[in-house]
Amino acid sequence: MIHLEELKSKIMESDEESLISYVELFRPFDLASCVEELDKAEQLKLMKIVPAPLCAEIMEYLEPELQYRILYNLEETITSQILNEMSSDVVADMMLAIHRYQAVKLLNYLPEDYRAKVQTLMTFPEHTAGSLATVDYIAARSSWTIEQTMQHFRKIGHDAEITSYVYVTGNKGELRGVVSLKELILTEPNTEISKIVTEDVIYVPASMEQEKAAELLSRYDLVALPVVDEQNRLIGVINVDDLIDVIQEEATEDIQKLGGSQPLTATYFKSSVFQLYRKRIIWLLVLFAAEAYTGTVLRHYEETLSEVIALSFFIPLLIGTGGNTGTQTVSTLVRALAVGEVQFRDIFKVIRKEITTGLMTGASISLIAYARAWMLGVETNIGLVVGITCMTIVLWASFVAAILPLILHKLKADPAVISGPFITTLVDGTGLIIYFSIAKIILQL
Amino acid sequence: MIHLEELKSKIMESDEESLISYVELFRPFDLASCVEELDKAEQLKLMKIVPAPLCAEIMEYLEPELQYRILYNLEETITSQILNEMSSDVVADMMLAIHRYQAVKLLNYLPEDYRAKVQTLMTFPEHTAGSLATVDYIAARSSWTIEQTMQHFRKIGHDAEITSYVYVTGNKGELRGVVSLKELILTEPNTEISKIVTEDVIYVPASMEQEKAAELLSRYDLVALPVVDEQNRLIGVINVDDLIDVIQEEATEDIQKLGGSQPLTATYFKSSVFQLYRKRIIWLLVLFAAEAYTGTVLRHYEETLSEVIALSFFIPLLIGTGGNTGTQTVSTLVRALAVGEVQFRDIFKVIRKEITTGLMTGASISLIAYARAWMLGVETNIGLVVGITCMTIVLWASFVAAILPLILHKLKADPAVISGPFITTLVDGTGLIIYFSIAKIILQL
Repeated sequence: MIHLEELKSKIMESDEESLISYVELFRPFDLASCVEELDKAEQLKLMKIVPAPLCAEIMEYLEPELQYRILYNLEETITSQILNEMSSDVVADMMLAIHRYQAVKLLNYLPEDYRAKVQTLMTFPEHTAGSLATVDYIAARSSWTIEQTMQHFRKIGHDAEITSYVYVTGNKGELRGVVSLKELILTEPNTEISKIVTEDVIYVPASMEQEKAAELLSRYDLVALPVVDEQNRLIGVINVDDLIDVIQEEATEDIQKLGGSQPLTATYFKSSVFQLYRKRIIWLLVLFAAEAYTGTVLRHYEETLSEVIALSFFIPLLIGTGGNTGTQTVSTLVRALAVGEVQFRDIFKVIRKEITTGLMTGASISLIAYARAWMLGVETNIGLVVGITCMTIVLWASFVAAILPLILHKLKADPAVISGPFITTLVDGTGLIIYFSIAKIILQL
Repeated sequence: MIHLEELKSKIMESDEESLISYVELFRPFDLASCVEELDKAEQLKLMKIVPAPLCAEIMEYLEPELQYRILYNLEETITSQILNEMSSDVVADMMLAIHRYQAVKLLNYLPEDYRAKVQTLMTFPEHTAGSLATVDYIAARSSWTIEQTMQHFRKIGHDAEITSYVYVTGNKGELRGVVSLKELILTEPNTEISKIVTEDVIYVPASMEQEKAAELLSRYDLVALPVVDEQNRLIGVINVDDLIDVIQEEATEDIQKLGGSQPLTATYFKSSVFQLYRKRIIWLLVLFAAEAYTGTVLRHYEETLSEVIALSFFIPLLIGTGGNTGTQTVSTLVRALAVGEVQFRDIFKVIRKEITTGLMTGASISLIAYARAWMLGVETNIGLVVGITCMTIVLWASFVAAILPLILHKLKADPAVISGPFITTLVDGTGLIIYFSIAKIILQL
């Protein structure tokens, strides 16, 4: 492992060779974590000495603001070298994150045709497939032979990022298909590339949402995904590592939403307390308002309550169990919807499955609830009320938790909005009504 | 899209050529989904006619039991062809899923040295890196030249699954490093491979947990991960698509656990109602037992309650808000721990962050709680009790939800055990004690 203090002292020593051979022992990702901890002067001194290709790799893991600050403060020739070594998708993201005027200045360090490609990447909104694409891939014309393609590969392969596949395009740059590097090597050099091209390549439009692209990649076991514009022209390729990041981010967002807060836009420690507050307070207030309804329900049954105060003993237990059941069902279904295991058309199958499961869990818990009432030494009738309510609430929670996520999904809303706290709150109010209604009937109040 | 009915009628027609050209229009993944829906006779007829390489690709997406049933019922020559075309990791998984006797019979269809490799893969327990590895990679000896390596590649590349990298091994098969196919092409053929090998390759021991391997792959943006035995000998390579599946599965498991149930071992629809019941009832009962404690607390305060029945109106509201706050914090932190953003050593930073956020959300909600009490027309004093309790419970929930996941992580237990329902239940009982203690002081009961 790399040690921050050791790195700092190497930078202080100003022995360039020793510093370079030290940093070359470590991986760009680990170096980047260290660079974030250095002070500004140390960052610049390090990046000035380290060779540009390694600098560029380190930069890929830094935040856009830090990338810019480093590039802005280095000498022009070094800035230019590093910028040209960086992946085009990272460059485009940085350009979008900084001020327009600063971006124009940096873009001028790029050769003209590369600059145009980066500027195209910059036009795609965040969270679309286009915003993840890199232009550092290798394309071959469909009229070329394998030999011509390999010559082209030898010429530009060094600077390319995506090299396990060569994409075949037509005269107007339209995507015709893909050939793997393996196939290029295993095929007779005089063969035309059109003879071995896989034409039904899986590709995505630049405007596609990034999670849809990730779903395709994961379903078909791909390692790269070509991106096309509206005229079907190849404009970039998404590498699997960027889509893995998308898969991780989507799961993180869903977990935070299911936990009843809005998803954070940064990592935990990079989110300020005020950001945490903002993301959480909205749902807390909405749920508080909904939960406040339980007060109205209880006041409505004030007379019943004061007649049989023992009924209040079971309030948290009953509504808690309902909430737990609902949370279990909701989280299972929201995830199943997210990974595509369940669709809206399955709604009746889902309801049947959840109600049957609810009957089984409800029956088990009702028996124990009845026993618990007996242990607390309340009247037998109250035990009966508690047992029946328990069964009813479990079934009710299962039903509501089964249908709401599916309906939201159908309405193209995010099913993860139906969080654990949401379903718990919903079941709290309605569960109380169920409880007191059953109590009134059985206890004849 | 492929149509099941169309495929069925093509199979019925028995026109082999037309059937083959029809299925070749579709991708193995989509064909596999259809094969699952066919009846047994149709499955066999289809797999008998379709060429073995495509059959093998379709098989990769089927369940082991179905794979076996198909292989068992086809003619021996076809079985042998398909089996030899399948990825070694899929074959190993199938062998482990079927009866030992059946496995021995199928293994005999494999050539001796390949069989030995598959048998090695079969020795690794589920959920380890070894269990995900495939032996269909390309290895070069460190003494070879680029030209020799390319010759070897041309010889065995067709059957290999992982072809973007060539792994370099020493005399005893020990992993020496990796060379990308791109580097092989861009380097002068007479160069020795040891000159261009990347020696500090990231590799994992076969016994490593699969989620740790996935974390490495995701952190260092890799597309394949070599697996070694205890003597550092290369025994297989994990492909990125298998680790993407692991990443998805781990997220699914964490979501299900956070939702308060044990994770399902199969997909939603493949899990029977009884399995759903079993995975859910355990936590429901544990939580029920814990929640039952609220009854004891309430009975303890029975006198206070009957004196001031209005206190009961706020029970669900107060403990609900505590539960919601706790669930928000827990889900954020459990995920942050899972992706490595937070470690145990950050515990004081986390507590400070959560308590500060809790002060802000608590203050906001307390004000509204006070207003709500006023709206319900209860005594001013009770409003005060509700407001102060609200603040205290939010802080308490934030604190507990901040430390428990970190402590579990430190104890090498799974932090996702601290689910939303768990923290809600914990806050319910303790929240009531807080509520009634504050009430007794302020109302002087």
